Amino acid sequence: MKKFVNDPKDYVPEMLEGLALANPDTLRYVPEYNLVMRADAPKENKVSVVQGSGSGHEPAHVMTVGPGMLDAACPGDVFAAPPADFVYETVKRLASPKGVLLLVNNYTGDRMAFEMAEELSRADGVSVRTLFIDDDVAVQDSTYTIGRRGVAGNFFVMKAVGAAAERGADLDEVHRIGEKVNSVTRTMGMALTACTPPAKGSPLFELPDDAVEMGVGIHGEPGREREQLRPARDMVRELVDAVVDDLPFTGGDSVALMANGLGGTPIGELYLVYGLAHKQVVARGIDVWRSYVGEYCTSLDMAGASITLVRLDDEIRGLLGDPAQIPVRVF
Amino acid sequence: MKKFVNDPKDYVPEMLEGLALANPDTLRYVPEYNLVMRADAPKENKVSVVQGSGSGHEPAHVMTVGPGMLDAACPGDVFAAPPADFVYETVKRLASPKGVLLLVNNYTGDRMAFEMAEELSRADGVSVRTLFIDDDVAVQDSTYTIGRRGVAGNFFVMKAVGAAAERGADLDEVHRIGEKVNSVTRTMGMALTACTPPAKGSPLFELPDDAVEMGVGIHGEPGREREQLRPARDMVRELVDAVVDDLPFTGGDSVALMANGLGGTPIGELYLVYGLAHKQVVARGIDVWRSYVGEYCTSLDMAGASITLVRLDDEIRGLLGDPAQIPVRVF
Repeated sequence: MKKFVNDPKDYVPEMLEGLALANPDTLRYVPEYNLVMRADAPKENKVSVVQGSGSGHEPAHVMTVGPGMLDAACPGDVFAAPPADFVYETVKRLASPKGVLLLVNNYTGDRMAFEMAEELSRADGVSVRTLFIDDDVAVQDSTYTIGRRGVAGNFFVMKAVGAAAERGADLDEVHRIGEKVNSVTRTMGMALTACTPPAKGSPLFELPDDAVEMGVGIHGEPGREREQLRPARDMVRELVDAVVDDLPFTGGDSVALMANGLGGTPIGELYLVYGLAHKQVVARGIDVWRSYVGEYCTSLDMAGASITLVRLDDEIRGLLGDPAQIPVRVF
Repeated sequence: MKKFVNDPKDYVPEMLEGLALANPDTLRYVPEYNLVMRADAPKENKVSVVQGSGSGHEPAHVMTVGPGMLDAACPGDVFAAPPADFVYETVKRLASPKGVLLLVNNYTGDRMAFEMAEELSRADGVSVRTLFIDDDVAVQDSTYTIGRRGVAGNFFVMKAVGAAAERGADLDEVHRIGEKVNSVTRTMGMALTACTPPAKGSPLFELPDDAVEMGVGIHGEPGREREQLRPARDMVRELVDAVVDDLPFTGGDSVALMANGLGGTPIGELYLVYGLAHKQVVARGIDVWRSYVGEYCTSLDMAGASITLVRLDDEIRGLLGDPAQIPVRVF
């Protein structure tokens, strides 16, 4: 295993400590709960927005904490849901008079942890709602999921609800906006290589030199099909077609288009992928309002990419256009 | 080779086309010269700042074009200097009454191309100066270099001269600032894996599973030594010690500290590296003013990282703090 790591069991806390040291004025780090929060949270006059997930998907979610995005993130270990008490302690610290919105990518382990924490928090008198994100069109059910998985399209939900909360919207309104953005967001990804979890020390699955996993999950879960490695334009077309046909997006739609890297694919290739996807989307009569190219939701060091489209209206465009300040300046 | 690529010879133009499609309002792309420029350049009232280099180091330099950074970038093919006529045509288009500053990382091929273009441009009556960047402490001379190599510390020079040019400083003043920042900037990197150029289709060098290249160049050039893979803290200490002892940085210095990824290392590992470097720097009595964590200057898909320190004073802090708007929002 070729990684920057000391003892693999310290990978997550050492990463979080580095994040905290890099952002001493804006972030607060509570090691016992893997909790990363805005230094100025909770704020009396806004809904607190919280997300947790397994680690290994960075920048999601610990590097997206800041004004206009998340108020806090509470990750678990690599590819493992945060324990329910981590989430519960996070909600306690983030409890604002305007309430707390919990964002959860749709995986069974995450759902269980967040639903338990929601129940405990409600018993404490905290106003709390939960929103599940399930933008991945690849498969209906999967290794860790009943229903669709939540992947990189999560960023658009975070951005929109973060902006709405910053504007002072109440909990029901912030929740409505999140549901709305999730309902018009679709993603599919593919792996060129497997990823290597630090504690395992070897690739999570085997992928031959001439094969790709089309529709892969962000924990290396199987996708739709194992296919031959082909020219980028053919593989990108398969991603774009799957995403466009699912909602479906149709001629005249205005969209945000994201090419997301899965961790091991360099930004040069991601722009190449973006260009191919852009042309294919435009050829279908769809208008690209704004581009998002880079790493948003990764799978450790996996080489691969995903394509996300979001159907926009004036409300969503406005929220995506609001400022945000987070450690990785991806928006 | 597992990459998003069509015909490998189209890798660079297809990447640049994607970049242009993703930034239609802010960038102009001139395919015949690999030229990416601000849509509003040249500006009458500011020095134009231009850099070129081989491709494969993205975001350097084509993704760092925008207000407060570069006015244009003119890359060559992967790891190949831009042809002199690409640079010359770029200077022609960027010629501002206040002049043009050419930034060049110190490699023999790049120097030759830029020096020839400078000469031709001066014969045309353009006011032009060139500045060489050589922040890499690893080796004195190298495969493609007489003298030290220019690597990720280049970003601090770009940022400072970009800010000074934006403020309206004249060509001599912008040049002075660039020289000053270069003189207080030091970097060293290391490779965990080799990188694979699209046209070659296989790794550029062999690196055994238990070995790292300490002091590697960004084109895979040999560094100081091939060493055993060790815990991150030991490898990071070797980078930090080499950088700190070179200038040298001493107790009481105020610095910017960068952990730069070489393309294949995920952001989670980079924050872990940053945290280790931060603590080691602080333990030497040095004050970290600001952190920079992410991919700035890469080597295709190489797994690895570099550490950069810049010794700051009020002037440099002010320039680094100015706003910049570029496709990858790394500052």
